Amino acid sequence: MERTLVSKTPKKIDEKVKLEGWVNSVRDHGKITFIDLRDRTGIIQCVGSNLPKVTAESVIEIIGKITKRPEKLVNKNIQTGEIELQIEKLKVLANAHELPIDMGKEELEVELPTLLDLRSLTLRHPKVKSIFKVQAKLAEGFRKAATELGCTEIFIPTIAATATEGGAEVFKVKYYDHDAFMTQSPQLYKQMLVPVFERVFTIAKAYRAEPSVTTRHLSESTQMDCELAFVDFNELLDALEFVGRATLQYAEKESSEELKMFNVPHLKIPTKIPRLKMREAQEIIYKRTGVDHRNEKDLDPEDEREICKWALEEKQSDLVTITHYPTKKRAFYTASDELDPEFSLSYDLLFRGLEILSGSLRINDYKKLVEAIKSRGMDPKNFEMYLQAFKFGMPPEGGFSFGLERLTMKLLELGNVREASLYPRDMQRVDIRLT
Amino acid sequence: MERTLVSKTPKKIDEKVKLEGWVNSVRDHGKITFIDLRDRTGIIQCVGSNLPKVTAESVIEIIGKITKRPEKLVNKNIQTGEIELQIEKLKVLANAHELPIDMGKEELEVELPTLLDLRSLTLRHPKVKSIFKVQAKLAEGFRKAATELGCTEIFIPTIAATATEGGAEVFKVKYYDHDAFMTQSPQLYKQMLVPVFERVFTIAKAYRAEPSVTTRHLSESTQMDCELAFVDFNELLDALEFVGRATLQYAEKESSEELKMFNVPHLKIPTKIPRLKMREAQEIIYKRTGVDHRNEKDLDPEDEREICKWALEEKQSDLVTITHYPTKKRAFYTASDELDPEFSLSYDLLFRGLEILSGSLRINDYKKLVEAIKSRGMDPKNFEMYLQAFKFGMPPEGGFSFGLERLTMKLLELGNVREASLYPRDMQRVDIRLT
Repeated sequence: MERTLVSKTPKKIDEKVKLEGWVNSVRDHGKITFIDLRDRTGIIQCVGSNLPKVTAESVIEIIGKITKRPEKLVNKNIQTGEIELQIEKLKVLANAHELPIDMGKEELEVELPTLLDLRSLTLRHPKVKSIFKVQAKLAEGFRKAATELGCTEIFIPTIAATATEGGAEVFKVKYYDHDAFMTQSPQLYKQMLVPVFERVFTIAKAYRAEPSVTTRHLSESTQMDCELAFVDFNELLDALEFVGRATLQYAEKESSEELKMFNVPHLKIPTKIPRLKMREAQEIIYKRTGVDHRNEKDLDPEDEREICKWALEEKQSDLVTITHYPTKKRAFYTASDELDPEFSLSYDLLFRGLEILSGSLRINDYKKLVEAIKSRGMDPKNFEMYLQAFKFGMPPEGGFSFGLERLTMKLLELGNVREASLYPRDMQRVDIRLT
Repeated sequence: MERTLVSKTPKKIDEKVKLEGWVNSVRDHGKITFIDLRDRTGIIQCVGSNLPKVTAESVIEIIGKITKRPEKLVNKNIQTGEIELQIEKLKVLANAHELPIDMGKEELEVELPTLLDLRSLTLRHPKVKSIFKVQAKLAEGFRKAATELGCTEIFIPTIAATATEGGAEVFKVKYYDHDAFMTQSPQLYKQMLVPVFERVFTIAKAYRAEPSVTTRHLSESTQMDCELAFVDFNELLDALEFVGRATLQYAEKESSEELKMFNVPHLKIPTKIPRLKMREAQEIIYKRTGVDHRNEKDLDPEDEREICKWALEEKQSDLVTITHYPTKKRAFYTASDELDPEFSLSYDLLFRGLEILSGSLRINDYKKLVEAIKSRGMDPKNFEMYLQAFKFGMPPEGGFSFGLERLTMKLLELGNVREASLYPRDMQRVDIRLT
């Protein structure tokens, strides 16, 4: 007999079906037992008598008949609430040990350390799981948008010979008889591939040895990166706003059920996403709040929230693009504005109060790039393969990068980025706590 | 003026256009200069006089008029061979240094060490680049097939607390004040996520400290993995054959131009891909060749080639599935055949003489799995988070894994897997040679 998925059962009233899944919860009322069976498509109530004893999360196979429930017993909390399965045969495929926490509630009420100590269990909770259904759609949406821009997907290395993007926060690997390092971002490799494909994208790992535990940082994260040749600054802004908008809208369309669980409001993204230079944003913030950050070299988190409030109130936009951050505050490869070199042709995309994407036009001139490396106290010799790409003709180009976990966290308004990583790594944890 | 891509120029006869790209080659005939301009869509011949001097691989912008070439001058070797661009204005966007090798030939005739020493340059060669256009389509085809099977995409970690899949060939990371390890495959994490999503896929990195340099191994590779719950052995074989077939056919359809460059013959994949137990394959090989490997514990490379010859000759198939390898030869999590426990419910998919995919039905019973770990001399304590997934109800499940670089290498019949990795890592090289 073939398996029927829970989501297909409402169509099979009065039919005999075989269901397979997990015991989401079990209620023993003497002779009659109620089992909520969960599979990847939903939950359905099953009723039977004289059943073998089953424990929560055990894997079972049930054969039975789909029946309509009396009107007054309809359970509106679950998708299949108007039907139930009359159990004829129940077989246990795998027994679960006694659960250390209650998994049957609508909200999984556990603290973060428990959530992560029991990660292989807690991920099964429908609401926890749905975070990663959304994440998969964000990634898919990003790839679709990048492909539409004409980007080729690249698979780039994560082990590098030198720590090229700043020394302190890098993980060292024992690589045969040598030292090597985990890449801190896909940045250098995606640039190196611009002269090959002109337009590239990748979803790749980034490793940062963050020396502290914060709610916003992971030691291993997933970056979604694009890099485009033959674009000027405005075309680049168009491109990043296209990708930002398309990624979010795709996830909203494809994950409407999941977003509802997190009470995520509908996206507001106007045809023209507001664009401000950092100095303009500071001016607006000063006018709105009286707080004078007009000489600061960056927007702090409070500034980001305030300018997003402005964008929503004045431009009906959940997104706002901030450009022209000070050249010194950005990475060495960032192009500066020729009209005012103190500021760079860089940008952040802010979404509902948080930066979700960052990037810039890059220096494409070989000599200038070598100078930029030296001016930051680094040695061009450590950039041999990177510089090779510039030595033999690098077009004007730029790009941008999303943090996938960070984007997921923000869209669902999670309190901690660890909740948006299946198995998060930080200073204190690699699955189990480090002692 | 907007940029026109080379592939759009044949439609623009007599129009004035702006092209941007690289100098693929330049031929100076005194007053008249011929420049082959290359962009991501193709190559076009441009002709002009009194031009500034340009070097190969420099980035240029040309404004000119598209004209038809006289019949007898049509160049059949390039897509745009029947037209050329009369140069009116030429601007150099980035100068290239003198090239250490000739990039203008149809075949890039360099040895492997040179190919990799100059990787940021050699990847630009149309034929080298096309390897990675095919690779991107293989990955896309895999994702489409896995999605069609109902798999959710997962983003799993690559840093692990212990070396759980065998000790010797693992890279150690200095992780804050602790030792950690780079994962040798996505295997354990994809299994852990089966009780969450039932069906998962991932494209993830795998790190192996291969202590020797061979033509088939990389220290960092890209794995394409699926894992499916509630399947029996035959359903699993159906699933892997579906994904194998769909991945290859998608790449063939989407990369026909590139496959032509490598003279790849059309795929032959019958509706029913031949399936053989390893012992049956050995019997066939014995009958065909007289070589008696009927008691060997595995197929060696020569056996794999011979059984693929049989599949092509007798079943008109480029693919053949081999099952039931000896239990002892496969990883600890492999389920054995209950009828004959010496053999396992494992399989390899062979393609034109090479194994491109490997997998098995897994042990899903917690106690049996703990026993299996112990029987291989490993400590279950090092598998805490992995075992947690089994402790609380793991359904019958199994899966499979492709090596993306290996698959690319085989499809294009490259001599070395390094040619199928953008920036390959091995014992002797991390971009530059290790000394």
